This record gives sequence, structure tokens and C-alpha cells, in this order.
Amino acid sequence: MSAAATTRDPGAAARPAFDLARWSAERLRRVEQALGQWVVADAPAGLGEAMRYAVLDGGKRLRPLLVLAACEAVGGHAEAGLRAACAVELIHAYSLVHDDMPCMDNDVLRRGKPTVHVKFGEAQALLAGDALQALAFELLAPEDAAFPVAVQAALCRLLARAAGHAGMAGGQAIDLASVGCALDEAQLREMHRRKTGALLQGCVLMGAACGAADAKVQAALADYGAAVGLAFQVIDDILDVTADSATLGKTAGKDAVQAKPTYVSVLGLEPSRRLARELLEQAIAALARSGLPDTRALQGLAMMVVNRDN
Amino acid sequence: MSAAATTRDPGAAARPAFDLARWSAERLRRVEQALGQWVVADAPAGLGEAMRYAVLDGGKRLRPLLVLAACEAVGGHAEAGLRAACAVELIHAYSLVHDDMPCMDNDVLRRGKPTVHVKFGEAQALLAGDALQALAFELLAPEDAAFPVAVQAALCRLLARAAGHAGMAGGQAIDLASVGCALDEAQLREMHRRKTGALLQGCVLMGAACGAADAKVQAALADYGAAVGLAFQVIDDILDVTADSATLGKTAGKDAVQAKPTYVSVLGLEPSRRLARELLEQAIAALARSGLPDTRALQGLAMMVVNRDN
Repeated sequence: MSAAATTRDPGAAARPAFDLARWSAERLRRVEQALGQWVVADAPAGLGEAMRYAVLDGGKRLRPLLVLAACEAVGGHAEAGLRAACAVELIHAYSLVHDDMPCMDNDVLRRGKPTVHVKFGEAQALLAGDALQALAFELLAPEDAAFPVAVQAALCRLLARAAGHAGMAGGQAIDLASVGCALDEAQLREMHRRKTGALLQGCVLMGAACGAADAKVQAALADYGAAVGLAFQVIDDILDVTADSATLGKTAGKDAVQAKPTYVSVLGLEPSRRLARELLEQAIAALARSGLPDTRALQGLAMMVVNRDN
Repeated sequence: MSAAATTRDPGAAARPAFDLARWSAERLRRVEQALGQWVVADAPAGLGEAMRYAVLDGGKRLRPLLVLAACEAVGGHAEAGLRAACAVELIHAYSLVHDDMPCMDNDVLRRGKPTVHVKFGEAQALLAGDALQALAFELLAPEDAAFPVAVQAALCRLLARAAGHAGMAGGQAIDLASVGCALDEAQLREMHRRKTGALLQGCVLMGAACGAADAKVQAALADYGAAVGLAFQVIDDILDVTADSATLGKTAGKDAVQAKPTYVSVLGLEPSRRLARELLEQAIAALARSGLPDTRALQGLAMMVVNRDN
């Protein structure tokens, strides 16, 4: 090991090699258990069943992992991190339920299963999405929490901004309006910065808010989150044309069918792949700027986002 | 004035007569101004326009008034009260947008205007409702707020519970499932306790949470809120059969057309009117139990709920 490397990361020699799969499996076990407990089955008139169907046993859980990785990187409160991790997953799940409905994308397949409105009807799907959004905020502000009320308030603020008109919901409105339109790269980036980027970046900011990250750390993690968020969408657009429905667990090729502008349609396939690699480099560079002692999980997740095949 | 009355309310002689209309008008002016400022017009791709259409220039604003009356009764933080008042109105507005959609009640008229999905399309209505729910929580946890983070966290918790599966969304699921069913009074009460009662009671609890209400005050205000919430629905059911669409500002008689169980269909018209009067008495009695020095606005609002004609 060089002297320079030792200076940059003095604890590296003392740590075992980092195993992202093992790190993730341990966190996912906790997240699945918590979701199974908090997304109640006894909500009335079948609502709980629809909510659980939308959330449990599905998805890569990238967002909870980003929250927990950021929380651990800043030494944040573990309970706050777990609640934030579950809350962002509930927001993600509700957005998929509503996005799949006939008046939006009208999709019948999600994670290899019938979508919520196909299985439970449109009205129940609408309500289940609404109730999941409310539950996300309920998780963040528990009575008698073991973490400070200042953290609870910050988490609510960050999640609301990431999910609302300035974030995910606003991005979906642009997405709706852009079908059949020719967007340039700047417009496409702005749409995705809101539609998927805001919540992915929100995960990282929420994880950081579970601890006492200073302004420098917060800024670096915000940059990391923005790069990972955009990379996620670029790869999504690439996979829509290069993967099949069975691998994706959802309908492949639907961007072209719906005449939606994508990175592939605007930049082409190879330039899109190059952009994804550049964004990964930006994300890794931001982690180095943070000065945090151990960002290996955040590094690993950024690489996973860019190298995934579904 | 009798000696007994003087003993019960020692400050009454020193106060001018209470004018609910004047009290309400002053608060509504602040609420309308705040909503006009906080429900942004610049949300992208027409989303802000749909959100503002759903919220501004319409409705009785009963919920914000309940929040402010409870907040003032406990001497709560004024900024917290105003934010909570607007947040509950956003939740109410989003629920109407989603409830009017074709997959739910399929209604085309609301407050005398075309419903949001008629004017902006179903997809935009769905997104506007989603964004309004997120904005409600965003309002409750502002950066650099002039009120304690403990109040912010409590408001988020109370609103999430009132809006979610245990409250409004759960009640709507029961409502969906009960169309064409014969419910008894207990089942009907349980549906309405969630569907409209939880948010109305939540208004009172949120107002109380803006200050430092002790357990006795909280319990009394919770009882008041529960009675007012149920009375509101009983009157709603009565008006659906006794008023015309022009007075209501929405389609009259639709409960019977949709074969929805109501207080009128379960109890009959006169027993429903009697129940409303009993609930009003319960609400007033709860205020007396609270021991709060001035509950005249809360009293006036309870009377308004029961005596309204739209």
C-alpha cells in the first residue's frame, strides 16, 4: 500500500475487504422485516392487502439501501435510518401503483406480477397508493421515538420535497406532457432529475439527516445522490431497449411504443453508456470530497446502479 | 347574569360578545393568502395549475377553522397553527380530487365547477392529488421555522394518522366495499369515524398540538373532535336528500343513486336530525370539560356544522 493511500484512508488496512452483497443482504433482511411489520395487514376492507401486495416481496430495494448506506457513513441514528429507509420505499411503491394505472402508463405487469389495479381494481389501487404515501410520513414521526424530534422533522421535510411537485410528482407531470415530444438533453435531464432523481437523491440526504453531517458532507452527498439518480435513469432507458421483459420483470420496449423521449432516443445507445460511466465517476469523486472515513457501501451501490441488468 | 354563570366563566363579563362570522372571516383571509402563496403556480407541466384549481377559491374551509380555533384555545404557536390549517385543507382537497375520479365516485361537479379530472384529465388529477398530499407534509416541517421541531413532528404524526389507512383512506376503502350493502348503525359509524371523522378530529388534535395542551385538555378536545366529525357526516347525509345541487354546489341525491348506506337510509330522516343534535350537545359538553378559558370559536364551529345548509 502506498503512503498516499494510507494518508487518504488510514483505517483501510485494519478493515476486512468490503462485501457489498453481504452488506446488502443483512440490511435488506431488516428492511423486509420492518416493512412486513409496519405495512399493516389489518387496514379495513382489503386496503391492507393491497398495500402489502404493492410493497412486500418485490423490488431491488435500492432506495432503502441508499438511505442506510448514507446513514451509516455519517454515523446516524439506526432507528431513524431504518424508518427513513422504509418510508422512501413506501413512496416508491405508491408511485409505481399510481403510475401503472390505466390513466397513466396502463401497465399490467410489475416485478413479474399483475399490477395492483389489475389484481385489486382501480379504486383500491388509488386508495392503496394514497395510504402508502401517508404511512411513509407516519413512519418518520413515531411517538416515543429513540431519535431526536429534529431528525424526525428533517426527514419529513426531505421526503415531502423529494416526493412532491418539485420532485417526483412534478417529474411525472413533465413525463406525461412530453409523450410524443422531441426533448433536448437538458429538458430530458430536468425531467429525470425530478421524476426519479429527486427521490434517489432524497434517500442519500435523508440518510445523512439521521446523523449530524456538516455542510461539506451534505453537499458532497447531495452531489453523489444527484449523479447516482441520473445514472439510474440513463441505465433504465438503456435496459428498456437492450433487455427482455423476463429479465426486467416489467414490460420491455415500452418507451419506444409510447413514443417517450429517453436517453437512448436523444443521445443514442453508446453515448448513453458513456454518460452512465461518467456519472459513476462523478459519484465516486463526490464521495472522496465528503471526507467521510468509510463510504464503501455508497461506492458499491453506485457501481451496482450502473452495472445492473434489471 | 347569574352567580353560577359567573363562576363557570369568570372572564365572560369582560369580553365582548363573540362574533363567529367575524372571527372566521379574519382567519379565512389568512388561510386563503397562505394557500395562495404555498400552493405554487410554477410546478411543472400544468401540475401547479391543477393543484391550485383543486385548492383555491372553494370550500367552506371548516377544517382550517377547526385547527385555528383549537390552536387559539390552547394558546398555540400562530405559525404552526396556520401551517397546520393549510396542511389539513390540502389533504381534504386531494381526497376530493381522487374521490371524484371515474374509478371512484365519477363525479363531474364540485363546488359548482367541473371536477379536476374533467378540466385537466385523469392523469393530471391523479398527480395533482399526490402532490397535494406531499405538500401538506412539506408545510408542516419548514426549514428555519419559528416553532419547535417537536411541534413539527407531532403535526406530521397526527396528519399522517388522520389521512392514512387508519383514518381517511381506510374509511374510503370501507365506503367502496359498502356500496349496495346493508350496514347497521355501528358499521356506518365506524366507516364515517374513519372517512370524514378522523381528519376533522385530526384538525382539533393538530390545533391542540401547536401549544402545550395537557392530557385532560387533549382528551376533551379529542371528544369534541369526534362528536363534531360524526355530526358533520350525519348532516352531510341529511343534506344529500333534503338539499338541491345548486345549494350544495355538488350533485345532490347521489347516495341513493349509488345505493350507498347513509344515516338517513339506516336511521331515517328524523332520527338522523336528533342524532345530530345529540352530537352537538356532546361536543359542547366536551368543551366544558376541557377547562379551557375561551372555547367560543370551537363552540360556534360545532353549531355551524350542525346548522349548515350546504
